[in-house]
Amino acid sequence: MPPAPSSPLAAYTRPAGAPRIPVAILGATGMVGQRFAQLLAGHPWFEVVEVAASDRSVGKRYGDLPWRLSGENPFPNARLLEASPGPVLAPIVFSALDKAVAFDLEPAFRDAGRAVISNASAFRMDPRVPLIIPEVNPHHLDVVAPALEAGGGFILTNPNCTCIPMTMALAPLHRKYGVEAATCASYQAVSGAGYPGESAYDMLGNVHPHPGDEEQKVSEEPRKMLGEPSDVGGLAAFPISARCVRVPVVDGHLVAVHVRLREKPSIDEVKSTLAAFRGPIALPSLPERPIVLTEERDRPTPRADADAGGGMAVTVGRVEVCDVLGYKFYALAHNVIRGAAGAAIANAELCVARGYIPGMPIP
Amino acid sequence: MPPAPSSPLAAYTRPAGAPRIPVAILGATGMVGQRFAQLLAGHPWFEVVEVAASDRSVGKRYGDLPWRLSGENPFPNARLLEASPGPVLAPIVFSALDKAVAFDLEPAFRDAGRAVISNASAFRMDPRVPLIIPEVNPHHLDVVAPALEAGGGFILTNPNCTCIPMTMALAPLHRKYGVEAATCASYQAVSGAGYPGESAYDMLGNVHPHPGDEEQKVSEEPRKMLGEPSDVGGLAAFPISARCVRVPVVDGHLVAVHVRLREKPSIDEVKSTLAAFRGPIALPSLPERPIVLTEERDRPTPRADADAGGGMAVTVGRVEVCDVLGYKFYALAHNVIRGAAGAAIANAELCVARGYIPGMPIP
Amino acid sequence: MPPAPSSPLAAYTRPAGAPRIPVAILGATGMVGQRFAQLLAGHPWFEVVEVAASDRSVGKRYGDLPWRLSGENPFPNARLLEASPGPVLAPIVFSALDKAVAFDLEPAFRDAGRAVISNASAFRMDPRVPLIIPEVNPHHLDVVAPALEAGGGFILTNPNCTCIPMTMALAPLHRKYGVEAATCASYQAVSGAGYPGESAYDMLGNVHPHPGDEEQKVSEEPRKMLGEPSDVGGLAAFPISARCVRVPVVDGHLVAVHVRLREKPSIDEVKSTLAAFRGPIALPSLPERPIVLTEERDRPTPRADADAGGGMAVTVGRVEVCDVLGYKFYALAHNVIRGAAGAAIANAELCVARGYIPGMPIP
Amino acid sequence: MPPAPSSPLAAYTRPAGAPRIPVAILGATGMVGQRFAQLLAGHPWFEVVEVAASDRSVGKRYGDLPWRLSGENPFPNARLLEASPGPVLAPIVFSALDKAVAFDLEPAFRDAGRAVISNASAFRMDPRVPLIIPEVNPHHLDVVAPALEAGGGFILTNPNCTCIPMTMALAPLHRKYGVEAATCASYQAVSGAGYPGESAYDMLGNVHPHPGDEEQKVSEEPRKMLGEPSDVGGLAAFPISARCVRVPVVDGHLVAVHVRLREKPSIDEVKSTLAAFRGPIALPSLPERPIVLTEERDRPTPRADADAGGGMAVTVGRVEVCDVLGYKFYALAHNVIRGAAGAAIANAELCVARGYIPGMPIP
Repeated sequence: MPPAPSSPLAAYTRPAGAPRIPVAILGATGMVGQRFAQLLAGHPWFEVVEVAASDRSVGKRYGDLPWRLSGENPFPNARLLEASPGPVLAPIVFSALDKAVAFDLEPAFRDAGRAVISNASAFRMDPRVPLIIPEVNPHHLDVVAPALEAGGGFILTNPNCTCIPMTMALAPLHRKYGVEAATCASYQAVSGAGYPGESAYDMLGNVHPHPGDEEQKVSEEPRKMLGEPSDVGGLAAFPISARCVRVPVVDGHLVAVHVRLREKPSIDEVKSTLAAFRGPIALPSLPERPIVLTEERDRPTPRADADAGGGMAVTVGRVEVCDVLGYKFYALAHNVIRGAAGAAIANAELCVARGYIPGMPIP
Repeated sequence: MPPAPSSPLAAYTRPAGAPRIPVAILGATGMVGQRFAQLLAGHPWFEVVEVAASDRSVGKRYGDLPWRLSGENPFPNARLLEASPGPVLAPIVFSALDKAVAFDLEPAFRDAGRAVISNASAFRMDPRVPLIIPEVNPHHLDVVAPALEAGGGFILTNPNCTCIPMTMALAPLHRKYGVEAATCASYQAVSGAGYPGESAYDMLGNVHPHPGDEEQKVSEEPRKMLGEPSDVGGLAAFPISARCVRVPVVDGHLVAVHVRLREKPSIDEVKSTLAAFRGPIALPSLPERPIVLTEERDRPTPRADADAGGGMAVTVGRVEVCDVLGYKFYALAHNVIRGAAGAAIANAELCVARGYIPGMPIP
Repeated sequence: MPPAPSSPLAAYTRPAGAPRIPVAILGATGMVGQRFAQLLAGHPWFEVVEVAASDRSVGKRYGDLPWRLSGENPFPNARLLEASPGPVLAPIVFSALDKAVAFDLEPAFRDAGRAVISNASAFRMDPRVPLIIPEVNPHHLDVVAPALEAGGGFILTNPNCTCIPMTMALAPLHRKYGVEAATCASYQAVSGAGYPGESAYDMLGNVHPHPGDEEQKVSEEPRKMLGEPSDVGGLAAFPISARCVRVPVVDGHLVAVHVRLREKPSIDEVKSTLAAFRGPIALPSLPERPIVLTEERDRPTPRADADAGGGMAVTVGRVEVCDVLGYKFYALAHNVIRGAAGAAIANAELCVARGYIPGMPIP
Repeated sequence: MPPAPSSPLAAYTRPAGAPRIPVAILGATGMVGQRFAQLLAGHPWFEVVEVAASDRSVGKRYGDLPWRLSGENPFPNARLLEASPGPVLAPIVFSALDKAVAFDLEPAFRDAGRAVISNASAFRMDPRVPLIIPEVNPHHLDVVAPALEAGGGFILTNPNCTCIPMTMALAPLHRKYGVEAATCASYQAVSGAGYPGESAYDMLGNVHPHPGDEEQKVSEEPRKMLGEPSDVGGLAAFPISARCVRVPVVDGHLVAVHVRLREKPSIDEVKSTLAAFRGPIALPSLPERPIVLTEERDRPTPRADADAGGGMAVTVGRVEVCDVLGYKFYALAHNVIRGAAGAAIANAELCVARGYIPGMPIP
């Protein structure tokens, strides 16, 4: 079980009058890239100075490409740059790149001394790359300290969108009671597939098992986040078995989780533990309560709960006895905010709070 | 584990030239009642002679009420009768009544000497009432023999629509390897809620946990069907824990099942056992193969697979290792055909094949 | 053609420090009633002091009933009152009552001296009741002045949700070019049917003609709003023929409009006239631009445009030549905000700006 | 107005024992191509002997590619050929090719002496290419007689999927009363966009104006089918103005039509004329009644009516007075059956009935 993260984290306040830190968005035209732009517009610490995209968009105005979120493109006049460390100069780059592209480009930015805050899956399970949810395992960021002290850059990842609600709910249970095993079944929104993503013909009035490697991610990533150096391979020792299913929902991933715990708390104790969960540090993008507990029998739902906490809170409901594994509950998160762009931005905020900004000495 | 049902069942052939048996439909105007009418039109053994509905429809032409399935009402000129043994005279009555109404009316029909073939949940767990899937536990029908021999009627039920795909897939595994525990998560179509059922506002682009007692049914009914007299309470001894979620699909319930087996067959052996599953008797409504095995990674889906075997086959896919319980797979069935009206009709066919028709001596 | 409304309207500013005016919501638990609560929470001029509902909810906490919008019920602790002028004392009451109930209750409130700002259709076509969109025909409010001066109350209505986008787009065209005829076809969201409204079974992957009197409303209400006392029956003289179809969308009514104009402006002139449209008075709920013109070929859409101007702007696109009637375009509005609750609140703001508050002398 | 087609057509009966005519499918892997395969399996006159597709599929087993319709691929073992007249030898080829590809390949097949029965839009408006609905304008087929007599091949097209329901409903009205003008608004299913077609993200809970040239097709194609040689350019002289909107429906295009007629029949007369409409010749794929008239106020709908007549009938409802153009109604057809593959197959049947088979003398 992970120890409580070190307390000094909680004390951070960004100095009044500090200039905003320039940041870039890689893969700015996709579903997650547009969310980065939307969430970073008006961010108190960061200023988007560069947007980059694939070759065929380079040179175009960002505002001339289709905008798929509600509201307007906040940076319509920005010129799209090539996604490489030459034209993109910001010390912090947010990566919404596809996995295959990320494999090549993210190391290039890291080697050029940048902080790469990535939503891509390419390096999540790389032991040299932290995989972080700020409320869960912010201390994992330490792994990049040596590189940073040596003047280099680093890659920092957030988990897969389906892992988020599951991991955030399991974190306080693991710390307090010890998770021994978990199964889950997901109800995943189509925005998780990017754009154009799923065919309308396949999704209207239909659901289907995810044919890719989603289930593998869900069985691995939570164990890395809940693991400690003392664990074999750095992975928490319990097995996870996942079923991942796409459903005709636009935003919001629901997961039904069954879990076996080493200790045997009452259902009320489990609820209290979930509701009392807090991360060790306050950051601009983090909601006051990471987990919102609902007592409604038909909740959580994407409609009612995906936007909780500005899309950054996980809603947990129907915490009940499972006759097989002991406990079961539903957890839901906005898959593109808490599950992607918002998760990465919170990770970048964590870097700032820890002083992990390339080119600046670690406090 | 249940023994293999006695073999004589398999031999039944209805005599050439035998007249069709008159049957009635109770609750003929609802979603399941209309399916009864649709599936019984042109049935080789049964002839619909009476349709009955709630008080406010009595006396109307069946064809003057809204028809919600594709095609046309096959009995438009039938007058709707009051659902009671007075006006309804057929020896076999199919019940698509609501649970609360079924509690009162089904015993009245039974006491009037009729065979009540019910889709309602009212008496499913009553030890004196068999709960049957013809391929799985046809021998459970024996429990009604004494009543029938004494000249009385009986109630015979089929399971809840979500239990069907799960139970049919577990049946051959339980018989061969011994099920020790199972969990499942469902993706349930809106037709399962009847009409008008769910609000469009709640279901468009949304999913939600089933707030009713669906999960309890799924944890009990399969155990009754897979249980034997030697089991405590007649229930198979393994626990089931279910999560039930409504999704925006019209027809077709998908379930993701995790299962622990006493023996440890290979995945290929499990697949072979599922694909080789056959019931002990051929009946007009039963598909040749009760279980269709698919190897596509994004199947089964409601779109592609709900109509397999005329809506009477269960499609199983993604049979894989589960690191927690050992095995996992998806199973899908048409919830209104195999999961309701078709299930009941097959049960009535079983009664005919066994000679369990009120007023006739058991062969 | 209507004259330009009198200019003094534009000058209104509510005095600094003026106390908020107490208001009540009738029918607070429905789809529109909940929107009233959501939109009135924090309103600069109004303070919700009473919520009322049907008999079976009277006495309950508002927060104990299901909340169907995103976010939280803003008045969870309010006790639901009976919807009658006895217990409900506020001088301004917002009515989200069903038509049949409104027929009885709205006159009761009027006779008790209240301003009834109604979204119900009961009295919309009554010549003594103004039917108003503040940007279009605010001067129609004059009809209630005598009653108000005599110390009485009045009923003020806003149009049907499908009429809103059509009327707002036709208003500047009618004023400038003279509308001679219009046809339209609607694509109406399910929230327009209230809750539970349409059955999910009917709407998933389906569309259907509106079986009620929606088309009649769309053929009458715009003519009343665009009419003047000099017009026969107060109705603008051009015919409207509508087709109304429900589609599987949650919020946002799209209408395809074909229109014949007396004058023959170019398409660019029509676009300029639409984009330049402004109402005569600024009110807190009105967007800066009542009509947002889009040049995207696949817009407007409910997803992208329903929330324009906080849900209070109408988005118009694809203004093109029609070979039959001359001109055609699409218009879209949020049917529950601009098409219902927001429309009524803007009407109430208009009353305040005009000094039409029961119990206060008209300035 | 078109004259009634010549009567001899009605007499055709294919000789008993005549061998089935070999046919090929070009573009067999797409949405329409798969429908060709499904509808041609077991066809009484045609035998699929070749399937062809784009380069990247050539050489693969047809059954190894994804099958997107219900049921199974009827020709799983067929090898996909290159879509060119070299490898594809059948005298009749059904083209489900994309427009751009059809521009090149269809003339190649024609020049190789084949009958190209095309669903592509490439040559629909070419005056040398007939555009036919068998019940509406079968005599237009005469235009290919000279080429055929000279030993050559020809191209025969069916209309765009949205034109079908509109044209079939207008045909008897035009013949009897004279159409002077028509407007329409469509509610188009996603299968009309092929596969993958629309993005699920764009269509879930959303509708959007069709950004392509669909409206132009709908304004031209019906006029060609309803036109005669005496009409200018062969086009019926009345204008059509269309709005085309994609809606979240899988199969079934609904159109709301407003029409002005030269004569002024009563609504009942219009209904009688529609219901009495029959084509001049019976063909295997044609339904007994081309137009099914419904009196339900919320019909036609895709759910209830797309499959009428095996997907080959057009359902018309809500025939009512239009205060602007005189008459209005809804019409609905299955867009992939009557609107595409089934339309082409019926056209091929017409060729057979007329003796227009390359290599055979015209009777």
